[in-house]
Amino acid sequence: MTQNIYDDEGFFAGYSRLPRSVHGLDMMPEWPTLRAMLPEPRGARVVDLGCGFGWFCRWAADQGAASVLGLDVSEKMLTRARADTADPVIAYERANLDQLALPDVSFDLAYSALTLHYLQNLRGLFGVVHRALAPGGSFVFSAEHPIYTAPAVPGWAPRADGGKTWPVDHYLSEGPRSTDWLAKGVVKQHRTVATYLNLLIETGFTIARVIEWGPSPEQIAAHPEWADEVERPPFLLVAARR
Amino acid sequence: MTQNIYDDEGFFAGYSRLPRSVHGLDMMPEWPTLRAMLPEPRGARVVDLGCGFGWFCRWAADQGAASVLGLDVSEKMLTRARADTADPVIAYERANLDQLALPDVSFDLAYSALTLHYLQNLRGLFGVVHRALAPGGSFVFSAEHPIYTAPAVPGWAPRADGGKTWPVDHYLSEGPRSTDWLAKGVVKQHRTVATYLNLLIETGFTIARVIEWGPSPEQIAAHPEWADEVERPPFLLVAARR
Repeated sequence: MTQNIYDDEGFFAGYSRLPRSVHGLDMMPEWPTLRAMLPEPRGARVVDLGCGFGWFCRWAADQGAASVLGLDVSEKMLTRARADTADPVIAYERANLDQLALPDVSFDLAYSALTLHYLQNLRGLFGVVHRALAPGGSFVFSAEHPIYTAPAVPGWAPRADGGKTWPVDHYLSEGPRSTDWLAKGVVKQHRTVATYLNLLIETGFTIARVIEWGPSPEQIAAHPEWADEVERPPFLLVAARR
Repeated sequence: MTQNIYDDEGFFAGYSRLPRSVHGLDMMPEWPTLRAMLPEPRGARVVDLGCGFGWFCRWAADQGAASVLGLDVSEKMLTRARADTADPVIAYERANLDQLALPDVSFDLAYSALTLHYLQNLRGLFGVVHRALAPGGSFVFSAEHPIYTAPAVPGWAPRADGGKTWPVDHYLSEGPRSTDWLAKGVVKQHRTVATYLNLLIETGFTIARVIEWGPSPEQIAAHPEWADEVERPPFLLVAARR
């Protein structure tokens, strides 16, 4: 059973104070890159796997999506998401993404931001998403990058020249990683880049684009605190087509 | 101009003594995995990009390939490759893979082992390979893994629990890396996993399989000196289809 850490009081309080929780997509530094990987949202039937506070759902509705279904396991997040919109195009439902059921051939875009690395049954989810998409439909997601999730004890180390380095170990040992981020014992699933891609291919998807995201020079100029992220990518972004 | 380090006297002497140079494919620990990614070689027209001493060319010929073209920039390696076979199915030619020309639609399999990370013009090569393959043809290659090539000063560091860790930095800074391996100042080109894949996709290839290779438990039992390689993959293996 995948941990539902977002309904932990302390985690939720901390998560709610993150810039991306308060300000939404504009404070997700990877958003411009992820947005460029999306198909045209106008007229599309959209499902957001792990919608959180619903920032992406509201964006897709504002762009003219025909329908937007936001799914999340966290009651707390869905409560706030529902309170933040009255747009009839958007529906929010509670769902365990490890045991998801969706109607066949009923979406044009499946989107998921920083959610998949919490799930145990990625093969099952990818199969559900593939069947739920119309032919030609897109699956676009971000996840924590495997270089980021691999280490037994993740963290920066000093480099001889004064910079930082990110020690990688256990990269090929897939499975749970317990870290302390906003709360003690947050459990993520480490998978290799190859596993994400091969699961998509085996499910029937065609890989359309892969991005190992880091901040642009312009973003670093505006947010010097992001500079270290170019040493190793924090996020993996993938676009696939049914 | 890509460095032709294999014709350096000291490098060539050292390289010639490596187990994979003396004993061929059986001493390439990644070979069983790479072999499983290949299409049926019987009857295939094969080109080997960076054929070295010709071990793969001779294997393909032994498997019943219709023709095998081995290409390499190193005169020393080609001289030994030519001396090691009289099989009329095999032809060896000297070629600079950064400025390669091949006839269109004339191969069923393009193979390249641990060569692409030396090249400067990968986009150009991928285009040549795509045009040279028949529709449905396969491009299967290995390269040093980007986690392996990224660091400014590559090497293991000790872990608090007694194991080893591989500090990663400069991952998103693509370009030359100078290392001392068999000779001083061997120049490789660091590229991200995403760049290898996106260049293939932009060229028109479909990604069929991606492997971040590490030794199996059986291989580690037989070769305990390979055990650390599971901490971070030394090789990236990719199969793509035209």
